[in-house]
Amino acid sequence: MAITLGANQYGKAETRLVTVRRDGERHHITDLNVSIALRGDMTASHLHGDNAHVVPTDTQKNTVFAFAREQPVGEIEDFALRLGRHFVSSFEYITGARVLIDQYGWDRIDDHPHGFRRSSDEKRTTAVTVAGDQAWVVSGLRDLVVLKSTGSEFHGYPKDRYTTLPETTDRVLATAVNARWRYGRQNVDWATTFGSVRATLLTAFADTHSLALQQTLYAMGEAVLAKHDDVAEIRLSLPNKHHFVVDLSPFGLDNPNEVFFAADRPYGLIEGAVVRDDAPDPGLAWDTLSAF
Amino acid sequence: MAITLGANQYGKAETRLVTVRRDGERHHITDLNVSIALRGDMTASHLHGDNAHVVPTDTQKNTVFAFAREQPVGEIEDFALRLGRHFVSSFEYITGARVLIDQYGWDRIDDHPHGFRRSSDEKRTTAVTVAGDQAWVVSGLRDLVVLKSTGSEFHGYPKDRYTTLPETTDRVLATAVNARWRYGRQNVDWATTFGSVRATLLTAFADTHSLALQQTLYAMGEAVLAKHDDVAEIRLSLPNKHHFVVDLSPFGLDNPNEVFFAADRPYGLIEGAVVRDDAPDPGLAWDTLSAF
Amino acid sequence: MAITLGANQYGKAETRLVTVRRDGERHHITDLNVSIALRGDMTASHLHGDNAHVVPTDTQKNTVFAFAREQPVGEIEDFALRLGRHFVSSFEYITGARVLIDQYGWDRIDDHPHGFRRSSDEKRTTAVTVAGDQAWVVSGLRDLVVLKSTGSEFHGYPKDRYTTLPETTDRVLATAVNARWRYGRQNVDWATTFGSVRATLLTAFADTHSLALQQTLYAMGEAVLAKHDDVAEIRLSLPNKHHFVVDLSPFGLDNPNEVFFAADRPYGLIEGAVVRDDAPDPGLAWDTLSAF
Amino acid sequence: MAITLGANQYGKAETRLVTVRRDGERHHITDLNVSIALRGDMTASHLHGDNAHVVPTDTQKNTVFAFAREQPVGEIEDFALRLGRHFVSSFEYITGARVLIDQYGWDRIDDHPHGFRRSSDEKRTTAVTVAGDQAWVVSGLRDLVVLKSTGSEFHGYPKDRYTTLPETTDRVLATAVNARWRYGRQNVDWATTFGSVRATLLTAFADTHSLALQQTLYAMGEAVLAKHDDVAEIRLSLPNKHHFVVDLSPFGLDNPNEVFFAADRPYGLIEGAVVRDDAPDPGLAWDTLSAF
Repeated sequence: MAITLGANQYGKAETRLVTVRRDGERHHITDLNVSIALRGDMTASHLHGDNAHVVPTDTQKNTVFAFAREQPVGEIEDFALRLGRHFVSSFEYITGARVLIDQYGWDRIDDHPHGFRRSSDEKRTTAVTVAGDQAWVVSGLRDLVVLKSTGSEFHGYPKDRYTTLPETTDRVLATAVNARWRYGRQNVDWATTFGSVRATLLTAFADTHSLALQQTLYAMGEAVLAKHDDVAEIRLSLPNKHHFVVDLSPFGLDNPNEVFFAADRPYGLIEGAVVRDDAPDPGLAWDTLSAF
Repeated sequence: MAITLGANQYGKAETRLVTVRRDGERHHITDLNVSIALRGDMTASHLHGDNAHVVPTDTQKNTVFAFAREQPVGEIEDFALRLGRHFVSSFEYITGARVLIDQYGWDRIDDHPHGFRRSSDEKRTTAVTVAGDQAWVVSGLRDLVVLKSTGSEFHGYPKDRYTTLPETTDRVLATAVNARWRYGRQNVDWATTFGSVRATLLTAFADTHSLALQQTLYAMGEAVLAKHDDVAEIRLSLPNKHHFVVDLSPFGLDNPNEVFFAADRPYGLIEGAVVRDDAPDPGLAWDTLSAF
Repeated sequence: MAITLGANQYGKAETRLVTVRRDGERHHITDLNVSIALRGDMTASHLHGDNAHVVPTDTQKNTVFAFAREQPVGEIEDFALRLGRHFVSSFEYITGARVLIDQYGWDRIDDHPHGFRRSSDEKRTTAVTVAGDQAWVVSGLRDLVVLKSTGSEFHGYPKDRYTTLPETTDRVLATAVNARWRYGRQNVDWATTFGSVRATLLTAFADTHSLALQQTLYAMGEAVLAKHDDVAEIRLSLPNKHHFVVDLSPFGLDNPNEVFFAADRPYGLIEGAVVRDDAPDPGLAWDTLSAF
Repeated sequence: MAITLGANQYGKAETRLVTVRRDGERHHITDLNVSIALRGDMTASHLHGDNAHVVPTDTQKNTVFAFAREQPVGEIEDFALRLGRHFVSSFEYITGARVLIDQYGWDRIDDHPHGFRRSSDEKRTTAVTVAGDQAWVVSGLRDLVVLKSTGSEFHGYPKDRYTTLPETTDRVLATAVNARWRYGRQNVDWATTFGSVRATLLTAFADTHSLALQQTLYAMGEAVLAKHDDVAEIRLSLPNKHHFVVDLSPFGLDNPNEVFFAADRPYGLIEGAVVRDDAPDPGLAWDTLSAF
């Protein structure tokens, strides 16, 4: 029996990069949160503190800033690919990289040339994995909060001695959409596809008459795949943000689905993948290492 | 020398109320976070645990839900006034009430009749104080995050032995607007005024060529007062969300205000009031009791 | 009618200062979050962007770090006084300062000379106000979470048509203690008094048989004043962190106060001051300017 | 080409359970946050909204509360196993379950029989996976914040054109320990082992003279495995909470590692596993499904 080093990765997390690009008087801003994780033969550092293979996380941060100046940032998927490939190609002992980027949206104030307002708390995301010559791109979005005030039912579920939930044919359905989709190829118009996937998710959420949040999840995923040939798979994590009908009968009032209490915890959590049956192997696309 | 009870208040905080109003097939939703604080002669409860004057916070929560059914919620200022006056008029020993409401915005998905998307993290707020027959209304907004990529300078400040900040004639200026304004009267079209004040704040932020965040603060407040006769005073709390120009010279790169690091802490915090010199006395409008 | 500048203040918030003091091999660490707000004649900056009176918030931050080197930080009350007095005495146009400090606690790991573990989420706090030659010191603590599993009742409260809460003679009582106390004088052993006040609050919370959280609040405050001559007033803000007895009867089970659901929102919020009737005038001790 | 359902799971997240156990006058409390995810054949629900296999998340919550009454909760690992096995054995279409529990610690106030104080923000955790007759147990802890004020170096790393970090032979090393370890068997004294693993992690962090956080990570993991035969593998995720030496030279001051700025973002993130080379296959121990 011996004790050995298992899987490992390290990097700089959450470098907050904002860039301003000038188009004459008209400015364009990009607001990113960039996290990098590198992999390779890091045994000597772990066992002996020999850091000959440890590209400092501080250098990783510097690289993010320098890259943003050397070339326009462009779409986050491209920026992540450039960063990931740089580390893998620049250091022979770095064999893999994962680059995660969250992008915050900004709208112009009154079409102002340099005045902006943060759009919302929603983030556009990417997770790019590079290993040797290969690369996998996952795009996504987080914290897109949506609600349907009707058009949602829940019944027909199994009952046991611990069941008290009444069946319902009309309830509020609300969630914060967390979606990630992997591409079957990399020659993609990232921005256009992102916009289209996002719109598809929203429409499918609103239009699906829901008998279960699972059904809504699948409908959202299916609609995305049906409309986007280059998306091989989509994964959705949907917290069921419960809105409970308040019992107003003690006050002599009815409540025909008009007054709700929005609860914090506990919440349902529905997670699932929708895939093409001929999708290419995911490879390391979903890899995170972390079991945390 | 004796030990006595000083100022005090109590109530139910953060009741999360969501209402659905039907306009035929077309639904309208209201999403509120309601906090109530009551005042009165609470000495017996504090000294002896005699709760004859303590309207339970649970009852306050129930009242929020019941009121939302008995009458349409309407604008948050009106709902807060109704709630505050209810407690003061219903219980002789309750002499005052403060009701704070945050409202979350929702947009329709594709003009859907019952499908919605949370607009942003920004909140519309009100703080209503009722004391006996009197009432004061403060309206506001929070977490409206804005940024100017140019049109901001900072120089001419005093230097001492601890000063290292270089003067600048071009910097990024970003803040999360927290604004509260009190009305000189109560016969106000709350929703219209809110929209107009918000638009005025945004435009003034974007259009003011800023020599200091203080100047921007004042310009924002002045513009609101100049356009809204019924606003007597506005208070602004503006965190200076620093965006530092990254020094790229070690990498042989210049940085003509293109690449920034968005810092978390520390941050500047600029707070100030802009008032009419003939404004009515604020009375209890700004009262919070809490020194916490 | 004219529009004018009202009350205002500005400064650097949340400078995160950690110091290491060496006592031979044995190190001592201090972990602080320092926020400064300055006041004075800032009219020219607000109206014209003339910053001749605006000591930069960046300089304030530098001063925090430099002061930590020029002299041992010591107790947070003393450090806040030094900082506040520095700004008021160094710049004639700065007439007042407020310095707020949160301190995080650290314990040694196995009595290690330089290895430490963060004690908890609880913070020791101070809020010092300096105006001209005068100064007021408020000390406090935040986020001290406590719970009694019995010894708490709540009944005898008024009922109206919105009351549904059942009376109880045995409930769980839990809160996160937020306390601030002002001193009647400044020649105080801050550290010893802090420890003693904290211990008194804990013991009073645990030992008071509670008929209302208000009663517990008063008992806690009274005990502090009774034991500490130099404390003139204490203010407590106590969220009632509800623990609801779960109704297990649908499952054929009783629940003799054994199984609880810990709720997030809404929560009760009980706030009050306990004062000596001969306490000196608070002056600006509780001043915050901010109505936010 | 067809679109199909991929991996999926669903359940109730973050049920906040607090129990009180009476030992005569002396009470014992348990404070848990329980999350459940179930797996099985959920195709009909996703495709057609047929919920015949969907044990409601509300029932899952009820089960948590009922189980806490039917039998003492005991150690979180045992409670998670009971819950996971219940769902898998009670419903033929439920083939797997994951149960994650966070436990908050409480200390007695002055050895009080029923008065308690929350220990800290640190959580003891477990993640149990049940699949058919098999079960895997992972235990852990989160948010154990530690700091060394010396005994940490970092040098010998590769330099490239983006490197600016100076080498150091003395720096502050701070992290928030997130650790998870899986057991090679299930007949374990969970509480005793937890306490011993935690103590081992703390001692190894403090005692390891660190040339890299990677080295500290490995030393912590190795020490745990060396002392605990029943631990097959440990995974550590260690954010490098940077404490930067403040440059005080502009103020004419030196700074011999005495004054530090504690930064928020970006931060390093070092993750790795330490394993026995004869460890049993992890099976589903680390399974999370979620790529979110």
